[in-house]
Amino acid sequence: MDTPTALLDVTRMQRNIQRMQGRASTLGVQLRPHVKTHKCAEVVAAQIAAGATGITVSTLKEAEYFFAQGIRDILYAVAMAPHKLPQALALRREGCALTLITDSLAGSKAIVDFGRLHAETFAVMIEIDCDGHRSGVKPQDPRLLEIARLLGTSLAGVLTHAGESYGLDTPQALQAIAELERARCVAAAERIRAAGMPCAQVSVGSTPTALSAVSLEGVTELRAGVYAFFDLVMHNIGVCHLDELALSVLTTVIGHQPEKGWIITDAGWMAMSRDRGTQAQKRDFGYGQVCTETGEPIDGLLLSGANQEHGVAQFQGKKVDVVAQFPLGTRLRILPNHACATGTQFDSYSAVLENGDVQVWERLRGW
Amino acid sequence: MDTPTALLDVTRMQRNIQRMQGRASTLGVQLRPHVKTHKCAEVVAAQIAAGATGITVSTLKEAEYFFAQGIRDILYAVAMAPHKLPQALALRREGCALTLITDSLAGSKAIVDFGRLHAETFAVMIEIDCDGHRSGVKPQDPRLLEIARLLGTSLAGVLTHAGESYGLDTPQALQAIAELERARCVAAAERIRAAGMPCAQVSVGSTPTALSAVSLEGVTELRAGVYAFFDLVMHNIGVCHLDELALSVLTTVIGHQPEKGWIITDAGWMAMSRDRGTQAQKRDFGYGQVCTETGEPIDGLLLSGANQEHGVAQFQGKKVDVVAQFPLGTRLRILPNHACATGTQFDSYSAVLENGDVQVWERLRGW
Repeated sequence: MDTPTALLDVTRMQRNIQRMQGRASTLGVQLRPHVKTHKCAEVVAAQIAAGATGITVSTLKEAEYFFAQGIRDILYAVAMAPHKLPQALALRREGCALTLITDSLAGSKAIVDFGRLHAETFAVMIEIDCDGHRSGVKPQDPRLLEIARLLGTSLAGVLTHAGESYGLDTPQALQAIAELERARCVAAAERIRAAGMPCAQVSVGSTPTALSAVSLEGVTELRAGVYAFFDLVMHNIGVCHLDELALSVLTTVIGHQPEKGWIITDAGWMAMSRDRGTQAQKRDFGYGQVCTETGEPIDGLLLSGANQEHGVAQFQGKKVDVVAQFPLGTRLRILPNHACATGTQFDSYSAVLENGDVQVWERLRGW
Repeated sequence: MDTPTALLDVTRMQRNIQRMQGRASTLGVQLRPHVKTHKCAEVVAAQIAAGATGITVSTLKEAEYFFAQGIRDILYAVAMAPHKLPQALALRREGCALTLITDSLAGSKAIVDFGRLHAETFAVMIEIDCDGHRSGVKPQDPRLLEIARLLGTSLAGVLTHAGESYGLDTPQALQAIAELERARCVAAAERIRAAGMPCAQVSVGSTPTALSAVSLEGVTELRAGVYAFFDLVMHNIGVCHLDELALSVLTTVIGHQPEKGWIITDAGWMAMSRDRGTQAQKRDFGYGQVCTETGEPIDGLLLSGANQEHGVAQFQGKKVDVVAQFPLGTRLRILPNHACATGTQFDSYSAVLENGDVQVWERLRGW
C-alpha cells in the first residue's frame, strides 16, 4: 500500500453505525445520517442496512450522486441558493424525494416562485436557530410564521442543528444543549401548528447531542454525520473512545532531525488537512495522534507540525531516540482531528474489512 | 457559473510568472517552479513559456502527470521513501529526467542499493537544512560528506528551502534569510567539492526569499511555487500586493443573521480549506478577504468563520445593514490565506482570460 492512504476500519465503522442507530431506536425517532463526513456509497449502504430512512447531504452534487445509487429520500441541509433551484428541480423530476431548507422570506419566496413557474411543489423545511451557532430563524421570531405562510403547501417541517455542542465537553453540558436543541425545535413546530399550519417533520441533531439526548419527545428524526467515523474532536468532546475512531492516515517515515527528536512523515497537511479542531479543546492533538502501523496509539507522540507533504511527529515531554525506534521506512498511522476534513483530502478510502481484506471505496468531492 | 468556484485571474498569474522569471534572469540562475501550488498543466505551460527550465513536484503522481504532458526535467523535492523507488525507476525508464532528494545515510543507501539492483544511476540531490525549518542535513554536519560519498556518481547537487521565511515580514529580515539560504547551501556545495567530489547543482528557494535575494552567487537554480498565484499569507509577508492575488473563490450569499451582521455564504471551509495561515501574522484575515464579484476588496469584510459548506462573513468594527447591502443571491469573491490549500479543494479552476473568456483548467490531486 502506498502512503499516505486513508484507512477505514470497517469493523469500527459498523459498530459506530449500530450505536447511533440504536440511539435513534431507543429515542423513538428515525435516523437520517449526514453523509458529508464520508461521501461514500458503501458507508451509506451500511447506514441504510442498519435502519436509516434517508440521508442528509451538504451539496446538490452529493444528492445527485447518492440518488443515482438508489437513495431516494434526501435532505439538502444548506439554505437554498436561488440559482441552484434548476438543479433541485431536475432531481425532483427524476423522482428524487428531495427536501430543501430555508431560513428567510427571500429564500422562501425564491423557492415558491420558481416552483410555481415550473408547476413543482418543493418540500421545504424551515431552519431554526436553537443556539446562535450559524443560520436559522429563532423559534420566537415573527418571521417564522411569515415564512411558514409563504411556503404554504411546500412546508414540510422544521429542522435545527446545535453546532455549539462542539464547544462542550461534559455529559451535563451536552445533555443540556441536546435538550435545548429539542425544546426549541419542537417549540417552533408548535408555534406553526398553533397558527393553523401543519408541521409534520421535526428534525434535530449533531453527533454530540444525538449521543447525549435523554428524550427526543416531539422530534421525528435525528441527523448526525461524523459518528460513523468519529475523530479526535469528538473524543475531546467525550462522545467516543480513541479505539472507536474508524479513520486514520497511513504514513511512512521519510526522515528525522535526531537532535530535535523529530520524525518526518509523508503525511503532511495535504493528507491530514489543515484542520486544527483540537487546538481550543481540552487536549490539543496538533495535526493528529500518531499510532503504530496496526493502530495502537503511541503515548505522547503527536503530529505537531505539517507542511504540504511533510509531517513532523514529536514526543511531548520526553526524549526518544527516534532514528533507532522509528527508522526510515517505518509505517505509522495518524488519527485525525476532524474526519470530514481529512477524508476530503483523499479520492478513496482503503477499507479494511473484518477479515483483513482491503477494498477501495470511492469518495465523492467537489460541487 | 455555479458556486463555490475557484476563479483564476490569468492576467495576474501571467504577470506573477513574468515577475519571478525576471528575478531569476536578473540573479543569473535558472527557475524551476514548484507546481505543488497549482498542479495544473496550463499554468506549467505558462511557466515553461516564460523560461522555466523544468519543474519541482511534491508527489510522484505530479511527476507522472506532468511527464505525460511533455515535461521531462523534474525534481521530486520530498525526501525519497524507499518503497517509492520502483515508481521513480519506472519514470526514469520512460525517459523522465527525474531527480530525487535525500538527507540521510539510510535514504541514500536505499536509493543506491535499489539502483544497483536495477542497473540505474539515479540523480540525487542532498537536502540541506539552512534554517532549522524542517528536513535536511546541516552544511557543517559530518554526515554531509558521508552521504555525498555514498551517493557517488548519483550525486547531482545540493538543495535547500528556507521555510522559516514564511514567519518574517520585513524586507530586511527577508533579505537576511535569503542570504542565509544562499550562503549555507553554497557552503555545503563547497564542502563537497573541497572533499574532491563534484557538486553541479546548487538549488535554493521559497517565494519570499526568491523575491528578496540581493545576490545568488554560487547558486544554479531557484525554486518557488506560490508566487504564480500569491495569497494573503504572502501579502502579509510583504512580497505582493492584494491586487496581485490571482486565485479567489466565487461564492453566493445564502442567508444572514441581521442582528449579528453576519452574511452566510456557500463558501465554507470545504471551499476555502481549513488553512488559517494569517492567524499568527501581522493581519489575521480569518478564512479570507471578501471582495465584490469583480474582485474589489470590501474594506473590513472578512470571512470570519467557516463550517463545511457555510461561511460567515462579517465586517470588522462597523455596523452594516448586511441584508440590504448583500441580499440573498449576491455574488462575492474571497481571497484565500493559502493558495496551495484552497486550490486543492477544487478539481479545476475557472480560468478567466484577459479577454474575459472563461476556460476550465483541470487540477491534479491525491497521490
